Amino acid sequence: MSALVDSLRALVGDGNVLTGEAMAPQLVDWRGRYRGAAHCVVRPGSTAEVAAVVRACAEAGAPIVPQGGNTGLCGGATPDATGNAVLVCLGRMNRIRDIDPDNDTLTAEAGCTLAAVQAAAAGRLFPLALASEGSAQIGGNLSTNAGGVQVLRYGNARELTLGLEVVLPSGEIWNGLRGLRKDNTGYDLKHLFIGAEGTLGIITAATLKLFPLPRVHATGWVALASPAAAIGLLGDLRDEFGPLLTACELISDVALDFVLRHMPGSVRPLGASPWHLLVELSSGGDADLQSRLEAWLAGRLGAGACSDAVVAPSAAQARRLWALRENISEAQKREGISIKHDISLPISRLPVFLEQAGAALAAAFPGLRTVAFGHVGDGNLHYNLSMPEAGDNTAFIAAQPTVNRIVHDLVHAHGGSISAEHGLGQLKREEILRYKSTVEIELMRALKRALDPLGLMNPGKGIG
Amino acid sequence: MSALVDSLRALVGDGNVLTGEAMAPQLVDWRGRYRGAAHCVVRPGSTAEVAAVVRACAEAGAPIVPQGGNTGLCGGATPDATGNAVLVCLGRMNRIRDIDPDNDTLTAEAGCTLAAVQAAAAGRLFPLALASEGSAQIGGNLSTNAGGVQVLRYGNARELTLGLEVVLPSGEIWNGLRGLRKDNTGYDLKHLFIGAEGTLGIITAATLKLFPLPRVHATGWVALASPAAAIGLLGDLRDEFGPLLTACELISDVALDFVLRHMPGSVRPLGASPWHLLVELSSGGDADLQSRLEAWLAGRLGAGACSDAVVAPSAAQARRLWALRENISEAQKREGISIKHDISLPISRLPVFLEQAGAALAAAFPGLRTVAFGHVGDGNLHYNLSMPEAGDNTAFIAAQPTVNRIVHDLVHAHGGSISAEHGLGQLKREEILRYKSTVEIELMRALKRALDPLGLMNPGKGIG
Repeated sequence: MSALVDSLRALVGDGNVLTGEAMAPQLVDWRGRYRGAAHCVVRPGSTAEVAAVVRACAEAGAPIVPQGGNTGLCGGATPDATGNAVLVCLGRMNRIRDIDPDNDTLTAEAGCTLAAVQAAAAGRLFPLALASEGSAQIGGNLSTNAGGVQVLRYGNARELTLGLEVVLPSGEIWNGLRGLRKDNTGYDLKHLFIGAEGTLGIITAATLKLFPLPRVHATGWVALASPAAAIGLLGDLRDEFGPLLTACELISDVALDFVLRHMPGSVRPLGASPWHLLVELSSGGDADLQSRLEAWLAGRLGAGACSDAVVAPSAAQARRLWALRENISEAQKREGISIKHDISLPISRLPVFLEQAGAALAAAFPGLRTVAFGHVGDGNLHYNLSMPEAGDNTAFIAAQPTVNRIVHDLVHAHGGSISAEHGLGQLKREEILRYKSTVEIELMRALKRALDPLGLMNPGKGIG
Repeated sequence: MSALVDSLRALVGDGNVLTGEAMAPQLVDWRGRYRGAAHCVVRPGSTAEVAAVVRACAEAGAPIVPQGGNTGLCGGATPDATGNAVLVCLGRMNRIRDIDPDNDTLTAEAGCTLAAVQAAAAGRLFPLALASEGSAQIGGNLSTNAGGVQVLRYGNARELTLGLEVVLPSGEIWNGLRGLRKDNTGYDLKHLFIGAEGTLGIITAATLKLFPLPRVHATGWVALASPAAAIGLLGDLRDEFGPLLTACELISDVALDFVLRHMPGSVRPLGASPWHLLVELSSGGDADLQSRLEAWLAGRLGAGACSDAVVAPSAAQARRLWALRENISEAQKREGISIKHDISLPISRLPVFLEQAGAALAAAFPGLRTVAFGHVGDGNLHYNLSMPEAGDNTAFIAAQPTVNRIVHDLVHAHGGSISAEHGLGQLKREEILRYKSTVEIELMRALKRALDPLGLMNPGKGIG
């Protein structure tokens, strides 16, 4: 055993430092796409222990990789292959420290699962919601600035955070756990750590915004001829319902078709149509919301703004509509591995991007099936590509660099982002250098050097 | 003339470099509280010119003070007395570069007045609104992260910004003018420059969020026994109306009394009451909003949640209610100069703060009149103090350090901020050192050194 392992054991207790085979689950991401090695895994139980661990690692010159629920999609929490890193797992830091109902805030430790944070809000809403919420930890959600379907109404993880506690690369603790909506006393430090993928420090706790729990929902499914029609309807929805518009999900017919084919019990809500929009309104006390949506959609249908529309008559039917959206990823898996892109564009550019990317990919890969869906209200698309038969996908995957070049170059040309929700991690660390200006890269590197001069925090991840 | 003035004239044209008496209006803030001197005033007309000016200043070792509409309240745009600084005025950079209706964004140069940005949104809403909007420039609004009465619904200037263009202290241009709601590709640079009071670079343009223009408004005035009752009603309002609650302003009876006394045409909306709440709802298409608010307030009144309530029956009457709120500062001026505080607290702590601060100040300054009002939904109070007679104020002002100590120590003890909306500037630069941890101050200074190693950007302002 190394001297570092010994000193870490002295800091957090023998049982909370793992070596050898015991580390295995933490050395591979949940999808099995990234594998690494580590010197040891440490499970600190408090902020003071995290700080002591970081100091010990800094003294020993050991790289530090923070890990939450290990549900990331870009390999940001998997160490490299050198085996030099100390993997710091935050799962034992799972206390809800404070709930302040009158301030509509909750303070949670980094290792709380997202589901635990949602549950702790008892009677209020913490609106961040993800498929992985049962195991994803809030510290990781913040480190990747997680998104989801309700960003349109409530914002990304970043917008849901009022304060942070962070262990800095020096081992010092920054206590920025404020529950304030307005505070203009210097640089906004929290926004620097949110989305930094653990490269500037370890988030150990956060003060998060809560919201009234909506009591009234209205869920609609709209058939549309084109993405341009969807964007027109989105604008109309916002004009009419404003912030009551909680979600607005665009779904291509290919995506819906995959779900109908593979997911038992799925039923097409309306007749065939090239594009679909899943719309959700929510409110506290507006009892008429469902009939308002119905009447309004009837008017838009009459005006030719959409091809058909239906409003779910019951909560059970609304859940069935949502299941069509939520099962897309799973349904596409049944068609074999696919090439996925998590992109965002100015909303106005979505139609031209879809047209140009579709044409370029069809020319290069005849028969390609494009599963495009996502949060159109945020300009965020999951743009996932499968070949005509699942069996063709192996050769297709080998062409991934070519596919990415077509998609990402077009995203960039239209002012978009090649990582809307998932971060850079290991996956897009090189790719992003193609698209960001030298000035921007150097600015980010200057920040990294200023906060982590030894370069020990999550090396090989993000831009840092 | 110095060599620097000559080279600046060569860069931006003779007419856009001012020296001597011509600089006078720029060397004092609009309230006449801060006065400074400058080597010259430069008025660049483009981002390239700003960059060239910054490079010339950096080469000459001259400090740079950016100035927008000169409407700040903390002296952040007024140079120091040395006369070494080059004052860079952004007013000529006043183009709206782009409006993207489908993306709900607008790109404006830093020198656009806030009113010009609002007007350019034609048919959409840019929700930042301030008393000084006719002369305040958007670059200054962003550099101070301006707030206002609609933050409850739309957020601070920070939350309204998607992208920035910034001239860095090196004279390089960072083009971060993105119109994206989701972008997780590295550190969030825009949040570093917003609220930095020009100490990290000069914001030259911004891509801003637009919103649907509300067509329906409902404005109510509520009489309440206490701040605690106001906070209870705020929570109830949010539960019922959610994001339709656009503003919620707390007004102490002393504040209302000043307005009734000094502002002709002011009429008390309801009978006497120690506290008042001005409530505004807004919506796109909810035609029943006013009657919903009326019925709901009647229910709350019946339940004893407030003492009395009225909903404005017309837009003209709503404007009269708003005038009572908007005239508080002007009315208090008629009582002589006062000691003002721009503070925020967790909403839950407002009652105990008001009680403790009121008691401590009354003990120290018998007869003191507390004009407390502000954005209770954001936990933001303007806490402004006048003596019993206007004539007593001179001696009272001399005691300002004692007054600030009482107020700010209590704000800090309850987890609040001593500058909610207005920034630090020169005014609170020393005061903040009392309340921020060494770790936080050193973090901010590390960022300042990393981005502005020569220390030339707006020296003597903020923490940098």
